[in-house]
Amino acid sequence: MIFDILTLFPGMFRGPFDESIIRRAREKQLIDISLHNIRDYALDRHQVTDDAPYGGGAGMVMKVEPLSACIQAVKTLRPASTVVMTSPQGRPLSHGVAQELSRRQGMIIICGRYEGVDERIRDLYVEDDISLGDFVLSGGEIAAMAIVDAVTRLIPGALGCDESAATDSFCDGLLEYPQYTRPPEFMGLSVPEILLSGNHELIRKWRRAQSLGKTARLRPDLLAKVALNDEDRRLLKGLEQEHGSAVR
Amino acid sequence: MIFDILTLFPGMFRGPFDESIIRRAREKQLIDISLHNIRDYALDRHQVTDDAPYGGGAGMVMKVEPLSACIQAVKTLRPASTVVMTSPQGRPLSHGVAQELSRRQGMIIICGRYEGVDERIRDLYVEDDISLGDFVLSGGEIAAMAIVDAVTRLIPGALGCDESAATDSFCDGLLEYPQYTRPPEFMGLSVPEILLSGNHELIRKWRRAQSLGKTARLRPDLLAKVALNDEDRRLLKGLEQEHGSAVR
Repeated sequence: MIFDILTLFPGMFRGPFDESIIRRAREKQLIDISLHNIRDYALDRHQVTDDAPYGGGAGMVMKVEPLSACIQAVKTLRPASTVVMTSPQGRPLSHGVAQELSRRQGMIIICGRYEGVDERIRDLYVEDDISLGDFVLSGGEIAAMAIVDAVTRLIPGALGCDESAATDSFCDGLLEYPQYTRPPEFMGLSVPEILLSGNHELIRKWRRAQSLGKTARLRPDLLAKVALNDEDRRLLKGLEQEHGSAVR
Repeated sequence: MIFDILTLFPGMFRGPFDESIIRRAREKQLIDISLHNIRDYALDRHQVTDDAPYGGGAGMVMKVEPLSACIQAVKTLRPASTVVMTSPQGRPLSHGVAQELSRRQGMIIICGRYEGVDERIRDLYVEDDISLGDFVLSGGEIAAMAIVDAVTRLIPGALGCDESAATDSFCDGLLEYPQYTRPPEFMGLSVPEILLSGNHELIRKWRRAQSLGKTARLRPDLLAKVALNDEDRRLLKGLEQEHGSAVR
């Protein structure tokens, strides 16, 4: 997977891509990340990349020419890559979207800045528009980091053998069960006894019930989308009886 | 606003907090960001911060002792700050949540890693749990960056006079209208004539109609939450007639 990131602030990516899973995926050549400074494609003397919006109003708009030239240059290098914009109007990034993106050959991610990007960039080039959520960031850079991270960890081989994407939240549509490690007691709080029992079948059921219960309590919208089996229904029923009220 | 970030990878924050709006907000002393390396609070010889989960399974869990010691040390410095966990089970970050957070005195943000964090950390300390969305990141670091960015730009004075949070997406509950800047024509695409007309009232109406139409098309869930006035309803009706079908 090749990520090309088009940004006015390449320095922002210094730290985030040099640690942990992303660093290892780069070292294993599972992914390749190239940063492209949009300013390098502004050909006027002052390398201007923004201008006042037509029609007036606060803020500056990213100019169409430098960004267009940058996209064209990168597209020539990577004809098979998809041009992606990060913006609040995009489809929300989700586990499913990340899975879909992880099967692409490459992504050319445009990081918008200022009040926005000249709309003609979207009309001419953008094939996919992705939003991190219903909030506003100063630019697309942090959204691009999130996309690269969420996608990279789904590429086979990116996680070490001590890690696992398969038990993460959302992999089965549910939130993850609570985790504990040593010591067995800390500041008066004990690890649930069942986890120390060594009975793998009981532990599996307990964890499933915890996942179901937590999702029912915190995110009933997610639970509604999951195809529950008979055991799941029994476990949820058991939780309801335990708590004296419906958890679903 | 004081941000304290508790992380095993302080190096990840090198770039993101040294550019643009966050850098300026730090220089203006509107915000203060401190990074705390959780590993510094692991007091055993090998500074171990993770361990195998009780009950078995893939992945490693962040140990309770070093993180607890780190939280306590930072809490002593900032008794008025809220302890925040970034995790998929939290409430989703939104413009409204960012506004609420921007009014707090400070946030102590815990960046989880590995398969998760020993649940007792949540039981003992966590006051607010925030999720970036329904996807999995390798750790809470990028989520923390997003929170710091989204919150900082809402602090009065953080945006320069050439910027504006008031016309951003979501500020009035709608997606932003399209923006254009010079040149008036590029690769066969022209700027909408109305924006060159100089008629401010027509431009205002056109932009409002664009915002309404885009939100109706892409995010009907957002539009349903907005209190529309008479003009809004007329503009939406006009769009429907233009497109020959209901946009709402």
